[in-house]
Amino acid sequence: MTVVDQTNLADRKASTDAATIYVCITCRRASEPEAEPRPGAILAAATAKAAEGTGVVVRPVQCLANCTRGPSAAMRCNGSWTYVFGQLDVVCGPALVEGARLLASAPDGLMPWRGRPEALKRGLIARIPPIDFQEDVE
Amino acid sequence: MTVVDQTNLADRKASTDAATIYVCITCRRASEPEAEPRPGAILAAATAKAAEGTGVVVRPVQCLANCTRGPSAAMRCNGSWTYVFGQLDVVCGPALVEGARLLASAPDGLMPWRGRPEALKRGLIARIPPIDFQEDVE
Repeated sequence: MTVVDQTNLADRKASTDAATIYVCITCRRASEPEAEPRPGAILAAATAKAAEGTGVVVRPVQCLANCTRGPSAAMRCNGSWTYVFGQLDVVCGPALVEGARLLASAPDGLMPWRGRPEALKRGLIARIPPIDFQEDVE
Repeated sequence: MTVVDQTNLADRKASTDAATIYVCITCRRASEPEAEPRPGAILAAATAKAAEGTGVVVRPVQCLANCTRGPSAAMRCNGSWTYVFGQLDVVCGPALVEGARLLASAPDGLMPWRGRPEALKRGLIARIPPIDFQEDVE
């Protein structure tokens, strides 16, 4: 049992430490004409490049359903709140990685406002608690 | 090891089956004046009532950061995509519970469009993949 428990703890810690960013590769600004490559795809590539060597995982996805407020990205660590950002642009890769690292180092699982890149302040769309979250709302 | 594995599987299955809805209790329509109780709090209570006996868990939260598009709610099961909805109103409790049950029974973790309550079609704000999701985007 002890060995099993230690393995589980190690797995959980690794998983908690590594933030994952999901970047929509289909996104474009609603006001802009369709063109290839999509701004979302350019942003996904730029984010992957900015994440090199940081431990942050970048996953391209087809759709985050934030289409009228794109380009879009979401991020979380295991145990953290999940954040959705919109109205990003193709140069926001480093800002996303910086935000993901802030989130990964936040002891309460909430991305601090102070020090958060500007694009992740003005582009905040929503945040969702971790699955077992229970708030004292009394 | 066998006993431990079976316990884990049972836990995981229970967790997968039970959808959780998070309802923001601070939300109001951006266009409406402040008044107590907040529409979000009324919606949270109505959702909890609609969920009675269904197995769906309802958690009130202080803020989902979807403030300009409220009232807001989010939902997920373990292993499913996470959904955020906005521009709800106080009568959307049963729709949220119906959506959560649809999501919990979806084999691919995606809430089907067909059969989805209208309020969860027009109020879709974003969806975020499960943590280990990796899409084939080639």
